Amino acid sequence: MTEQAIQDLYPLETSHCFGCGYSNADGHQLKSYWNGDAAMASFTPDTRYSAIPGIVYGGLIASLIDCHGTATAAAAACQAAKSSMGVDPLPRFVTGGLKVDYLKPTPQGVQLDLRGVAIEIKDRKVVVEVSLHAGAALCAKGVVIAVRLPEAMLSGN
Amino acid sequence: MTEQAIQDLYPLETSHCFGCGYSNADGHQLKSYWNGDAAMASFTPDTRYSAIPGIVYGGLIASLIDCHGTATAAAAACQAAKSSMGVDPLPRFVTGGLKVDYLKPTPQGVQLDLRGVAIEIKDRKVVVEVSLHAGAALCAKGVVIAVRLPEAMLSGN
Repeated sequence: MTEQAIQDLYPLETSHCFGCGYSNADGHQLKSYWNGDAAMASFTPDTRYSAIPGIVYGGLIASLIDCHGTATAAAAACQAAKSSMGVDPLPRFVTGGLKVDYLKPTPQGVQLDLRGVAIEIKDRKVVVEVSLHAGAALCAKGVVIAVRLPEAMLSGN
Repeated sequence: MTEQAIQDLYPLETSHCFGCGYSNADGHQLKSYWNGDAAMASFTPDTRYSAIPGIVYGGLIASLIDCHGTATAAAAACQAAKSSMGVDPLPRFVTGGLKVDYLKPTPQGVQLDLRGVAIEIKDRKVVVEVSLHAGAALCAKGVVIAVRLPEAMLSGN
Protein backbone atom coordinates (compact mmCIF):
# COMPACT_ATOMS: atom_id res chain seq x y z
CA MET A 1 0.00 0.00 0.00
CA THR A 2 1.30 3.48 -0.79
CA GLU A 3 2.18 5.52 2.27
CA GLN A 4 0.87 8.73 0.76
CA ALA A 5 -2.79 9.13 -0.15
CA ILE A 6 -3.42 9.46 -3.88
CA GLN A 7 -5.25 12.74 -3.29
CA ASP A 8 -2.25 14.17 -1.45
CA LEU A 9 -0.29 13.81 -4.69
CA TYR A 10 -2.72 15.97 -6.67
CA PRO A 11 -1.30 19.28 -7.90
CA LEU A 12 -2.11 22.24 -5.66
CA GLU A 13 -4.41 23.81 -8.27
CA THR A 14 -6.64 20.71 -8.25
CA SER A 15 -6.67 20.19 -4.48
CA HIS A 16 -9.89 22.07 -3.61
CA CYS A 17 -12.45 19.30 -4.12
CA PHE A 18 -15.00 19.24 -1.29
CA GLY A 19 -14.92 15.46 -1.37
CA CYS A 20 -11.19 14.83 -1.35
CA GLY A 21 -9.05 17.95 -1.71
CA TYR A 22 -6.36 18.65 0.89
CA SER A 23 -6.89 22.39 0.36
CA ASN A 24 -10.61 22.25 1.21
CA ALA A 25 -10.73 22.70 4.98
CA ASP A 26 -14.54 22.28 5.06
CA GLY A 27 -14.56 19.14 2.95
CA HIS A 28 -14.53 15.39 3.54
CA GLN A 29 -10.81 15.05 2.72
CA LEU A 30 -11.23 11.45 1.59
CA LYS A 31 -7.89 9.64 1.42
CA SER A 32 -7.43 6.72 -0.97
CA TYR A 33 -4.39 4.42 -0.99
CA TRP A 34 -3.12 2.29 -3.87
CA ASN A 35 -2.01 -1.27 -3.25
CA GLY A 36 -0.89 -2.14 -6.77
CA ASP A 37 -4.20 -3.71 -7.78
CA ALA A 38 -6.85 -1.52 -6.20
CA ALA A 39 -7.38 1.70 -4.28
CA MET A 40 -8.66 1.46 -0.72
CA ALA A 41 -10.22 4.13 1.50
CA SER A 42 -12.04 4.30 4.80
CA PHE A 43 -14.42 6.99 5.96
CA THR A 44 -16.77 7.40 8.91
CA PRO A 45 -19.42 10.00 8.05
CA ASP A 46 -20.54 12.62 10.52
CA THR A 47 -24.12 12.09 11.72
CA ARG A 48 -25.26 15.26 9.97
CA TYR A 49 -25.05 13.35 6.67
CA SER A 50 -28.23 11.38 7.37
CA ALA A 51 -30.93 10.11 5.04
CA ILE A 52 -33.16 9.19 7.94
CA PRO A 53 -31.69 9.00 11.45
CA GLY A 54 -29.20 6.13 11.58
CA ILE A 55 -28.75 5.85 7.82
CA VAL A 56 -26.18 7.66 5.65
CA TYR A 57 -27.70 9.80 2.89
CA GLY A 58 -27.21 8.80 -0.70
CA GLY A 59 -25.56 12.04 -1.75
CA LEU A 60 -22.59 11.38 0.51
CA ILE A 61 -22.28 7.81 -0.73
CA ALA A 62 -22.27 9.09 -4.32
CA SER A 63 -19.64 11.65 -3.38
CA LEU A 64 -17.35 9.07 -1.77
CA ILE A 65 -17.66 6.72 -4.74
CA ASP A 66 -17.04 9.63 -7.12
CA CYS A 67 -13.86 10.87 -5.41
CA HIS A 68 -12.55 7.38 -4.73
CA GLY A 69 -13.17 6.52 -8.37
CA THR A 70 -11.17 9.42 -9.75
CA ALA A 71 -8.34 8.66 -7.30
CA THR A 72 -8.32 5.04 -8.44
CA ALA A 73 -8.17 6.25 -12.05
CA ALA A 74 -5.17 8.48 -11.31
CA ALA A 75 -3.24 5.68 -9.62
CA ALA A 76 -4.13 3.06 -12.22
CA ALA A 77 -3.19 5.40 -15.08
CA CYS A 78 0.09 6.24 -13.34
CA GLN A 79 0.90 2.54 -12.99
CA ALA A 80 -0.15 1.77 -16.57
CA ALA A 81 2.21 4.48 -17.80
CA LYS A 82 5.01 2.93 -15.71
CA SER A 83 5.37 6.23 -13.86
CA SER A 84 6.53 6.41 -10.25
CA MET A 85 3.76 7.50 -7.91
CA GLY A 86 4.98 10.28 -5.66
CA VAL A 87 7.85 11.06 -8.02
CA ASP A 88 6.34 11.73 -11.44
CA PRO A 89 3.37 14.12 -11.75
CA LEU A 90 0.11 12.26 -11.12
CA PRO A 91 -2.51 12.54 -13.90
CA ARG A 92 -5.67 14.24 -12.60
CA PHE A 93 -9.03 12.77 -13.53
CA VAL A 94 -12.52 14.20 -13.14
CA THR A 95 -15.88 12.47 -13.41
CA GLY A 96 -17.60 12.19 -16.76
CA GLY A 97 -20.21 9.71 -15.57
CA LEU A 98 -21.25 8.17 -12.27
CA LYS A 99 -23.59 5.28 -11.56
CA VAL A 100 -24.46 4.14 -8.06
CA ASP A 101 -26.58 1.18 -6.99
CA TYR A 102 -27.80 1.49 -3.42
CA LEU A 103 -28.05 -2.13 -2.32
CA LYS A 104 -28.69 -1.79 1.41
CA PRO A 105 -29.21 1.10 3.82
CA THR A 106 -25.74 2.32 4.88
CA PRO A 107 -25.55 2.55 8.68
CA GLN A 108 -24.19 5.60 10.47
CA GLY A 109 -21.55 5.44 13.16
CA VAL A 110 -19.45 2.75 11.51
CA GLN A 111 -16.44 2.94 9.24
CA LEU A 112 -17.23 2.61 5.55
CA ASP A 113 -14.65 0.84 3.39
CA LEU A 114 -14.24 1.61 -0.29
CA ARG A 115 -12.39 -0.44 -2.86
CA GLY A 116 -11.82 0.79 -6.40
CA VAL A 117 -10.59 -1.22 -9.37
CA ALA A 118 -9.87 0.11 -12.85
CA ILE A 119 -11.57 -2.14 -15.39
CA GLU A 120 -10.59 -0.10 -18.47
CA ILE A 121 -7.57 2.15 -18.86
CA LYS A 122 -7.11 4.41 -21.85
CA ASP A 123 -5.01 7.52 -22.21
CA ARG A 124 -7.79 9.98 -21.46
CA LYS A 125 -10.45 7.73 -19.88
CA VAL A 126 -10.42 5.20 -17.07
CA VAL A 127 -13.47 3.19 -15.99
CA VAL A 128 -13.51 2.26 -12.31
CA GLU A 129 -15.72 -0.06 -10.30
CA VAL A 130 -16.12 0.89 -6.65
CA SER A 131 -17.62 -1.11 -3.78
CA LEU A 132 -18.68 0.38 -0.45
CA HIS A 133 -18.92 -1.90 2.57
CA ALA A 134 -20.03 -1.30 6.16
CA GLY A 135 -18.34 -4.18 7.91
CA ALA A 136 -19.21 -7.29 5.91
CA ALA A 137 -22.24 -5.71 4.27
CA LEU A 138 -21.95 -4.50 0.67
CA CYS A 139 -24.12 -1.38 0.90
CA ALA A 140 -23.44 0.25 -2.46
CA LYS A 141 -21.53 -0.27 -5.64
CA GLY A 142 -20.67 2.20 -8.32
CA VAL A 143 -19.09 2.76 -11.69
CA VAL A 144 -17.11 5.93 -12.36
CA ILE A 145 -16.16 7.03 -15.85
CA ALA A 146 -13.10 9.14 -15.12
CA VAL A 147 -11.72 11.49 -17.77
CA ARG A 148 -8.39 13.30 -17.84
CA LEU A 149 -8.88 16.85 -16.61
CA PRO A 150 -8.94 19.16 -19.63
CA GLU A 151 -6.33 21.89 -19.29
CA ALA A 152 -9.02 24.41 -20.21
CA MET A 153 -10.76 23.77 -16.90
CA LEU A 154 -7.76 25.16 -15.07
CA SER A 155 -7.22 28.30 -17.13
CA GLY A 156 -8.25 31.47 -15.40
CA ASN A 157 -8.61 29.89 -11.98
CA MET B 1 -46.85 25.17 -9.39
CA THR B 2 -47.54 23.91 -5.86
CA GLU B 3 -47.05 26.55 -3.18
CA GLN B 4 -45.52 24.08 -0.76
CA ALA B 5 -42.28 22.30 -1.53
CA ILE B 6 -42.64 18.56 -2.00
CA GLN B 7 -40.03 17.95 0.70
CA ASP B 8 -42.01 20.05 3.18
CA LEU B 9 -44.83 17.51 2.85
CA TYR B 10 -42.60 14.57 3.91
CA PRO B 11 -43.55 12.97 7.24
CA LEU B 12 -41.50 14.24 10.19
CA GLU B 13 -39.72 10.90 10.61
CA THR B 14 -38.31 11.13 7.07
CA SER B 15 -37.36 14.80 7.18
CA HIS B 16 -33.69 14.47 8.22
CA CYS B 17 -32.06 14.05 4.82
CA PHE B 18 -28.90 16.17 4.49
CA GLY B 19 -29.86 16.96 0.93
CA CYS B 20 -33.48 17.97 1.36
CA GLY B 21 -34.88 17.39 4.85
CA TYR B 22 -36.52 20.29 6.67
CA SER B 23 -35.33 18.82 9.98
CA ASN B 24 -31.65 18.82 8.98
CA ALA B 25 -30.40 22.27 9.97
CA ASP B 26 -26.91 21.59 8.57
CA GLY B 27 -28.16 20.30 5.21
CA HIS B 28 -28.86 21.72 1.79
CA GLN B 29 -32.65 21.87 2.33
CA LEU B 30 -33.38 21.53 -1.37
CA LYS B 31 -36.97 22.54 -2.19
CA SER B 32 -38.70 21.03 -5.22
CA TYR B 33 -42.06 22.24 -6.57
CA TRP B 34 -44.53 20.27 -8.70
CA ASN B 35 -46.20 21.94 -11.68
CA GLY B 36 -48.40 19.04 -12.77
CA ASP B 37 -45.93 17.71 -15.32
CA ALA B 38 -42.52 18.10 -13.72
CA ALA B 39 -40.79 19.06 -10.50
CA MET B 40 -38.66 22.21 -10.49
CA ALA B 41 -36.00 23.34 -8.03
CA SER B 42 -33.35 26.02 -7.84
CA PHE B 43 -30.20 25.96 -5.75
CA THR B 44 -27.10 28.14 -5.52
CA PRO B 45 -24.26 26.12 -3.94
CA ASP B 46 -21.96 27.61 -1.35
CA THR B 47 -18.42 28.08 -2.65
CA ARG B 48 -17.11 25.42 -0.25
CA TYR B 49 -18.64 22.79 -2.56
CA SER B 50 -15.93 23.20 -5.17
CA ALA B 51 -14.32 20.67 -7.49
CA ILE B 52 -11.65 23.13 -8.51
CA PRO B 53 -12.09 26.83 -7.73
CA GLY B 54 -15.03 28.17 -9.72
CA ILE B 55 -16.55 24.78 -10.49
CA VAL B 56 -19.15 22.88 -8.40
CA TYR B 57 -18.00 19.44 -7.25
CA GLY B 58 -19.66 16.36 -8.64
CA GLY B 59 -20.80 15.00 -5.30
CA LEU B 60 -23.08 17.96 -4.74
CA ILE B 61 -24.51 17.68 -8.23
CA ALA B 62 -25.22 13.99 -7.61
CA SER B 63 -26.85 14.88 -4.30
CA LEU B 64 -29.12 17.52 -5.86
CA ILE B 65 -30.17 15.17 -8.66
CA ASP B 66 -30.76 12.38 -6.12
CA CYS B 67 -32.98 14.42 -3.78
CA HIS B 68 -34.81 16.18 -6.61
CA GLY B 69 -35.42 12.78 -8.20
CA THR B 70 -37.03 11.27 -5.12
CA ALA B 71 -39.16 14.39 -4.67
CA THR B 72 -40.30 14.15 -8.29
CA ALA B 73 -41.17 10.49 -7.68
CA ALA B 74 -43.27 11.35 -4.64
CA ALA B 75 -45.23 14.03 -6.47
CA ALA B 76 -45.71 11.96 -9.62
CA ALA B 77 -46.86 8.93 -7.61
CA CYS B 78 -49.24 11.12 -5.64
CA GLN B 79 -50.74 12.48 -8.86
CA ALA B 80 -50.91 9.03 -10.46
CA ALA B 81 -52.85 7.78 -7.43
CA LYS B 82 -55.23 10.72 -7.80
CA SER B 83 -54.33 11.83 -4.29
CA SER B 84 -54.36 15.45 -3.22
CA MET B 85 -50.90 16.80 -2.56
CA GLY B 86 -50.81 18.56 0.79
CA VAL B 87 -53.98 16.82 1.94
CA ASP B 88 -53.35 13.07 1.60
CA PRO B 89 -50.11 11.57 2.99
CA LEU B 90 -47.31 11.85 0.44
CA PRO B 91 -45.55 8.59 -0.47
CA ARG B 92 -41.86 8.70 0.48
CA PHE B 93 -39.32 7.41 -1.99
CA VAL B 94 -35.63 6.64 -1.54
CA THR B 95 -32.95 6.05 -4.14
CA GLY B 96 -32.30 2.55 -5.44
CA GLY B 97 -30.10 3.66 -8.29
CA LEU B 98 -28.58 6.90 -9.51
CA LYS B 99 -26.84 7.72 -12.77
CA VAL B 100 -25.31 11.10 -13.51
CA ASP B 101 -23.71 12.31 -16.72
CA TYR B 102 -21.51 15.36 -16.19
CA LEU B 103 -21.78 17.16 -19.50
CA LYS B 104 -20.09 20.48 -18.74
CA PRO B 105 -18.29 21.98 -15.75
CA THR B 106 -20.97 23.47 -13.48
CA PRO B 107 -20.05 27.06 -12.57
CA GLN B 108 -20.13 28.35 -9.02
CA GLY B 109 -21.89 31.54 -8.00
CA VAL B 110 -24.91 31.07 -10.24
CA GLN B 111 -28.31 29.55 -9.62
CA LEU B 112 -28.67 25.94 -10.74
CA ASP B 113 -32.07 24.89 -12.05
CA LEU B 114 -33.29 21.31 -11.82
CA ARG B 115 -36.19 19.76 -13.69
CA GLY B 116 -37.42 16.26 -12.92
CA VAL B 117 -39.86 14.20 -14.99
CA ALA B 118 -41.18 10.75 -14.10
CA ILE B 119 -40.79 8.48 -17.11
CA GLU B 120 -42.11 5.32 -15.43
CA ILE B 121 -44.53 5.10 -12.52
CA LYS B 122 -45.27 1.85 -10.73
CA ASP B 123 -46.66 1.28 -7.27
CA ARG B 124 -43.29 0.82 -5.59
CA LYS B 125 -40.88 2.22 -8.18
CA VAL B 126 -40.69 5.46 -10.13
CA VAL B 127 -37.98 6.27 -12.68
CA VAL B 128 -37.14 9.96 -12.97
CA GLU B 129 -35.04 11.90 -15.46
CA VAL B 130 -33.44 15.04 -14.07
CA SER B 131 -31.70 17.87 -15.90
CA LEU B 132 -29.47 20.47 -14.24
CA HIS B 133 -28.92 23.79 -15.96
CA ALA B 134 -26.76 26.79 -15.12
CA GLY B 135 -28.51 29.49 -17.10
CA ALA B 136 -28.95 28.12 -20.62
CA ALA B 137 -26.20 25.51 -20.22
CA LEU B 138 -27.19 21.91 -19.59
CA CYS B 139 -24.40 20.92 -17.19
CA ALA B 140 -25.59 17.51 -15.99
CA LYS B 141 -28.38 15.05 -16.50
CA GLY B 142 -29.36 12.14 -14.35
CA VAL B 143 -31.65 9.18 -13.93
CA VAL B 144 -32.98 8.27 -10.50
CA ILE B 145 -34.58 4.92 -9.77
CA ALA B 146 -36.75 5.79 -6.80
CA VAL B 147 -38.26 3.06 -4.64
CA ARG B 148 -40.99 3.34 -2.02
CA LEU B 149 -39.40 3.60 1.42
CA PRO B 150 -39.65 0.20 3.10
CA GLU B 151 -41.39 0.48 6.47
CA ALA B 152 -38.54 -1.57 7.97
CA MET B 153 -36.15 1.33 7.41
CA LEU B 154 -38.16 3.41 9.85
CA SER B 155 -38.51 0.87 12.63
CA GLY B 156 -36.41 1.60 15.66
CA ASN B 157 -35.49 5.12 14.55
